[in-house]
Amino acid sequence: MVERVIATSSFKAAAQSLRADHERFVDEIIRITQTPSPPFGEAERGRLVAQMMRDSGFRSVSIDEVGNVIGLRPGRDARLPPLVVAAHLDTVFPKGTDVTVKREGTKLRAPGIGDDSRGVATLLVLARAMDKAGIQTDRDVLFVGNVGEEGPGDLRGMRHLFSTNARARAAAGFISIDSSGSGGIVTRGVGSNRYHIVFSGPGGHSYDKFGIVNPMVPLAKTVTGLYQIAVPATPKVTYSASVVGGGTSVNTIPPQVFLDVDMRSISPEEVARVDAELRAIAQKAVDEENAARSTARGKVSVDFQVIGKRPAGHTDETKGIAAIAFGTAEAFGYEGRFIEVSTDANVPMSLGIPAITIGSGGTGGAEHSPDEWIDVALEPSVKGLTVDLATIIAAAGAKP
Amino acid sequence: MVERVIATSSFKAAAQSLRADHERFVDEIIRITQTPSPPFGEAERGRLVAQMMRDSGFRSVSIDEVGNVIGLRPGRDARLPPLVVAAHLDTVFPKGTDVTVKREGTKLRAPGIGDDSRGVATLLVLARAMDKAGIQTDRDVLFVGNVGEEGPGDLRGMRHLFSTNARARAAAGFISIDSSGSGGIVTRGVGSNRYHIVFSGPGGHSYDKFGIVNPMVPLAKTVTGLYQIAVPATPKVTYSASVVGGGTSVNTIPPQVFLDVDMRSISPEEVARVDAELRAIAQKAVDEENAARSTARGKVSVDFQVIGKRPAGHTDETKGIAAIAFGTAEAFGYEGRFIEVSTDANVPMSLGIPAITIGSGGTGGAEHSPDEWIDVALEPSVKGLTVDLATIIAAAGAKP
Repeated sequence: MVERVIATSSFKAAAQSLRADHERFVDEIIRITQTPSPPFGEAERGRLVAQMMRDSGFRSVSIDEVGNVIGLRPGRDARLPPLVVAAHLDTVFPKGTDVTVKREGTKLRAPGIGDDSRGVATLLVLARAMDKAGIQTDRDVLFVGNVGEEGPGDLRGMRHLFSTNARARAAAGFISIDSSGSGGIVTRGVGSNRYHIVFSGPGGHSYDKFGIVNPMVPLAKTVTGLYQIAVPATPKVTYSASVVGGGTSVNTIPPQVFLDVDMRSISPEEVARVDAELRAIAQKAVDEENAARSTARGKVSVDFQVIGKRPAGHTDETKGIAAIAFGTAEAFGYEGRFIEVSTDANVPMSLGIPAITIGSGGTGGAEHSPDEWIDVALEPSVKGLTVDLATIIAAAGAKP
Repeated sequence: MVERVIATSSFKAAAQSLRADHERFVDEIIRITQTPSPPFGEAERGRLVAQMMRDSGFRSVSIDEVGNVIGLRPGRDARLPPLVVAAHLDTVFPKGTDVTVKREGTKLRAPGIGDDSRGVATLLVLARAMDKAGIQTDRDVLFVGNVGEEGPGDLRGMRHLFSTNARARAAAGFISIDSSGSGGIVTRGVGSNRYHIVFSGPGGHSYDKFGIVNPMVPLAKTVTGLYQIAVPATPKVTYSASVVGGGTSVNTIPPQVFLDVDMRSISPEEVARVDAELRAIAQKAVDEENAARSTARGKVSVDFQVIGKRPAGHTDETKGIAAIAFGTAEAFGYEGRFIEVSTDANVPMSLGIPAITIGSGGTGGAEHSPDEWIDVALEPSVKGLTVDLATIIAAAGAKP
């Protein structure tokens, strides 16, 4: 299927126009990057991208309730389930971060430039290339600049899209374009549960009130219990007691302490198992503390506060959209490889929609650091975009 | 002995002059209070008190290397071991605290006014009363306004005095005048060891690096191990896992976490036992973690950082200085009672010097809070000062 797409004269024309349009593509990457987009602060970048979509020829552009920017590119048959192609608007960088792009030759350096300004600009340049070459896909393609991919966002853009947008919910496939590079195809979405676990008690003076319950003890037992949970080699399951805090002074039995825990797997069953075990361990530790020491001034208790819940899921690597992406990468000389990580594709995967995350081409690095960079040297950049173009056209279906 | 002192005409004259001098006493309390004296910032108050000592008739006043203000009142025989009478210059209140004294009738309200401005002013008013009445003690009396009594100071004023001042080191007795009230006599100095225990490891991504050692685990085992240490009913021994912290984000295995621990007893042996057990528990927990998980990226380790070490000690309650203070309080109608707590007297107690801490008389409350207050109503205030006067004269020895 991929070979058939690549061989068409219209595809060749589209690929050619990517080259002609490359300077505008780079300019759009810079403009997007220089519009700050911290977690839960994506609105300004969203408005810019909506305008860029209109300027790129989209006739239907909308911004939904949470800030996802949706541009519809109609296919031949509006009754077919559409393809959703997304790139995320948000960065990991807080408000006030200097997002000025520094250029050294073909190397551009700025926070968020690769993850995911280049991905968002890729949506635009690909749509224009298809228009220029007169390519009409069988299915509608919903191009989405979405919010909430990074940590604190907890995939809220995708959650909202797939729970409220009927066309997205019925999608035949999903492609997220995230970060630089070509050949890597995320097919296994690592799911995670993340908790801020608060242990509370009466607290009191360390000498005068010695003998009363201390919430530090059940916290400690929860950590040791967690690290005794056995995990299988496959599917991979992980947990981490990551952040801890609380207490008022060295001579005070703490009234409150907390523990932040992360657990992950591509298997939803394994995440659920570790989750249930952890809750049981924490409750048992609390009960033991209330039995071991005085509760005259009050008991200890535990409260699990959810700080993240990403659904796990996976996409069949032997057929459909994953096989298309793999074949396209290999056809252009990239080494295809399947990756397991947490991305926006987790959400459609968990709903049974074939979903992958692929790169936007070119090279880049130091993501999530102030030194983040991409290289926009013409040949590798255009070649990477061409791979994504072929993948989307093949996934959306097109007459030769 | 106490009765004999009280019965002398010179004592009666001295007591009478306390009444006549009371207005100046109150004025000095206010001036001392309004000169800020945060932990490690006692110099300005120290200079004021040195000047007040000179104005009160002390001929030999010095300030030592750490800021203790020492006024010598010579006795009959300079070869006798002296009596040390101290009150502390420092307050718990940080730099910038409003220390303006607010007056409502005989009630004065300001941070530190009772703990221990009134105690420091007591040194001055008592020395003047003894001078006025022509009382010459057998022993020299070293009046000391000392630094570092409160938490962070960790008794550094007393430590310095008793380790570097040969006359203090040879003292026959020690009296600290600390806070308001009469009748309470601290004879049991609660000692404490306080640690900031840092657990370190390589750290890494919670999913990618799962399986490496996590310093949170030995921290947790140290807490659970500490809370399994059995303690006797007498002497009282306490411990507290009080403050905890560390970690960078929920999806990062922490490179470092810490635990602040407090342990106390009037028995130095018990503090040493808990201390040794805790160190063994922490080391065993670290060794177990290095054996249980991968150390390919580095091992976990533990570092005990001392944040406080107050020596324990006690003073015989049946004779000497404690019995004198008890007898004096009862002679003036106060209920004598022996108290166990940590004060400046811990240091001389730990060196075998009979040492007590008593109140400066009057009433007061809300110490260590911005609402701290004392009442300087004439009768109870003078009566409390008279008790301290009798105690000091009896302890320093005086001919009738």
